[in-house]
Amino acid sequence: MLRERDGYVSGQELCDQFGVSRTAVWKVINGLKEEGYIIASVPRRGYRLEGAPDILSESELLSRMKTKWLGRRVIYFRETDSTNTQAKRLAEEGAPEGTLVAADMQTAGKGRRGRSWQQSPGMMVSVTFIIKPGFAPDKASMLTLLAAHSVAGAIEHVTGLPAGIKWPNDIVIHGKKIVGILTEMSLSVEQDSIHYVVVGIGINVNITSFPEEIRDMATSLYLESGQQVNRSSLIAEVLLRFEQDYEQFLKTEDLTGILEDYNAHLVSRDKEVRVLDPQGEFTGISRGMNADGELLVEKEDGNVIRVYAGEVSVRGLYGYV
Amino acid sequence: MLRERDGYVSGQELCDQFGVSRTAVWKVINGLKEEGYIIASVPRRGYRLEGAPDILSESELLSRMKTKWLGRRVIYFRETDSTNTQAKRLAEEGAPEGTLVAADMQTAGKGRRGRSWQQSPGMMVSVTFIIKPGFAPDKASMLTLLAAHSVAGAIEHVTGLPAGIKWPNDIVIHGKKIVGILTEMSLSVEQDSIHYVVVGIGINVNITSFPEEIRDMATSLYLESGQQVNRSSLIAEVLLRFEQDYEQFLKTEDLTGILEDYNAHLVSRDKEVRVLDPQGEFTGISRGMNADGELLVEKEDGNVIRVYAGEVSVRGLYGYV
Repeated sequence: MLRERDGYVSGQELCDQFGVSRTAVWKVINGLKEEGYIIASVPRRGYRLEGAPDILSESELLSRMKTKWLGRRVIYFRETDSTNTQAKRLAEEGAPEGTLVAADMQTAGKGRRGRSWQQSPGMMVSVTFIIKPGFAPDKASMLTLLAAHSVAGAIEHVTGLPAGIKWPNDIVIHGKKIVGILTEMSLSVEQDSIHYVVVGIGINVNITSFPEEIRDMATSLYLESGQQVNRSSLIAEVLLRFEQDYEQFLKTEDLTGILEDYNAHLVSRDKEVRVLDPQGEFTGISRGMNADGELLVEKEDGNVIRVYAGEVSVRGLYGYV
Repeated sequence: MLRERDGYVSGQELCDQFGVSRTAVWKVINGLKEEGYIIASVPRRGYRLEGAPDILSESELLSRMKTKWLGRRVIYFRETDSTNTQAKRLAEEGAPEGTLVAADMQTAGKGRRGRSWQQSPGMMVSVTFIIKPGFAPDKASMLTLLAAHSVAGAIEHVTGLPAGIKWPNDIVIHGKKIVGILTEMSLSVEQDSIHYVVVGIGINVNITSFPEEIRDMATSLYLESGQQVNRSSLIAEVLLRFEQDYEQFLKTEDLTGILEDYNAHLVSRDKEVRVLDPQGEFTGISRGMNADGELLVEKEDGNVIRVYAGEVSVRGLYGYV
């Protein structure tokens, strides 16, 4: 309520809204101050939010959330091994769909191919959410594509920076990687059904410098924009967009809903690409992704090859440049 | 050592073998007696195993185990929700390949389609083991077929009863179901790689009666043979056979190694079967499974249809009679 109101909220209003006593309101306000919020309290006028630090906390995240069901339950860690690991543990214990795990800092953040990196508090967005789709496991790779689309859009919306997508799920700004997405799934083999999927998203937000050896490959929103970015706003925007993309996906069971916008962000669009697969390497012109998530690559002879990646039922694509 | 020796083992031999004191030996012997083992101790001759109850325990299971790596680490529960749930939790915490979870009784044992049933202690074999295959997730359904083959062979070996396989993974004796297999998997979507698979096996061993409504469909080894079956011997035999089948499978990456024997156990072999799939229902003659795990069904016009089930990449087969 403090965040939504551009002025004072009286203590009585807060009591009425939440059905609690004055003392309870006072305790919560004090708790928020301890978390770092700057809240003015003026007799007979009430409370006013005058400043919020870039902290991640359950209350901060929930106060930003604009979704219907995604991220409406938040499990926050100041520090944890990896949000994917925690989300999987929670899912095994029966955590409901939409549960969001967020961490200020991961000590064992996992990237693709198992790469990990050091983090400091406040530098990154590290979130993982749990979803429990009814569709078959072989559609799970679509979720990675939806996540890439949601994150690219959220970054553009919050920072104004041009976020490009490298198919299937890398996000780059000015050619440098800024986001990692790691989707993991638990399923029943006999029933061919998904127990749960965890979608982990790591965004380089306020990192001020990278080690020499990856400086050409990685960047952060701070380095590209010159401004600190509020992480909880960014998370809320990512989740809002993912919820919308996901609900649309459930209707059509393909990527029709995001296709045009995804391809508008595709950095390889109409450019030459090289595809490495066990059948041999070939080059062609990227003609964008289709509604099944395949990249269409037009070879010199005019033939269009559909390239799969991350498909549970497909192996063999070792890399894509 | 007591189990292997057909006579007395002296206390000194036990001290030498395990590098411990007489007092330590005495304590362990007393512990085993408390678990229910009948052990004679005669001055100057030593100890002799005179009787072992049908208990499941870590020491009992390990003393029966004939495998190289499978089941060499045992986590035993007198009672647990479900061995699959525990195995998944342990796997998430980094339990090594081959870890076996065994329970004397499950309170929330899961069957296919999520059916659960009541159990009493001592009535069932409820085990789950963890494997971490390097092959792609779409091969995981093969593990269910391997498990069915291993269990059918172990039941025949231990009880002499004729165990038939209903493709893909039901085991029946005289037409009634006696085994449930539930395989679950955790994987990385982007990397298309398996984190771990848990293979859960439930065998109706010493159940003396079934509820009226399932009496025609389910049976137990006790009801079919009239004899109590030692559960840890049966588990050890299942694991030995699975380890062999699995290692063979890793070499060929198909079911060549078990194919002939699997088909020899197939109850539908050369009989009429009905296949229900979304494209429509059809009947034909079952010609056995092929090395890819598909059931070959010959239609009246001579066409042979390959029927998939439990394939991660395949949906649509709703039932098979």
